Amino acid sequence: MKQAIVARRDLGMGEGKLAAQVAHASLSAYEDTGRRTRKEWKGSGQKKVVLGVDSEHRLFELADKADTEGIPYAIIRDAGHTELEPGTVTALAVGPASDDLVDRVTGDLSLY
Amino acid sequence: MKQAIVARRDLGMGEGKLAAQVAHASLSAYEDTGRRTRKEWKGSGQKKVVLGVDSEHRLFELADKADTEGIPYAIIRDAGHTELEPGTVTALAVGPASDDLVDRVTGDLSLY
Repeated sequence: MKQAIVARRDLGMGEGKLAAQVAHASLSAYEDTGRRTRKEWKGSGQKKVVLGVDSEHRLFELADKADTEGIPYAIIRDAGHTELEPGTVTALAVGPASDDLVDRVTGDLSLY
Repeated sequence: MKQAIVARRDLGMGEGKLAAQVAHASLSAYEDTGRRTRKEWKGSGQKKVVLGVDSEHRLFELADKADTEGIPYAIIRDAGHTELEPGTVTALAVGPASDDLVDRVTGDLSLY
């Protein structure tokens, strides 16, 4: 079981900003996940991997793929109080789900 | 309402590693939070701030303070598969709770 969180490298987010966006995405997708899957994931150590992409377009493609595969996912837009323009899409969380299922969506991406 | 996540600067974690630890901490403290407070926090945009400290000792001091104030919190230890020694304490999440309450614990810290 794992959850993949994909963040945009092209925005040049600071470390703390990136971490907050990843946490938003992680929690949001988790909340859309069924009780049993959540329990399994937590029981196995709530594994998370943080991956990177270089465009908004790519994030939406991955979200579509997660949707097609029936995996819970969440897209995060920044409120824009600080570094970014309001509404900027920053991150996508995919899962928790089985490793295989998550890899069907994010298996080609590199670590952030 | 907000949640503060405090991470150790002295470990030299990579960006993705840091983000994953912050997300762990955020989710863990959230799960220890009462239903009503969770709902309020989410309804107000689930504000998160990521702060930094320079030692494990300081993280534990802050956790004690959160405990005394009766705020939900979670300390994260890394499983140590990659960058860090197994069991290394990496992050602490405080809240969600009211801004005032969280500031009593983390008000003196700077952004990560």
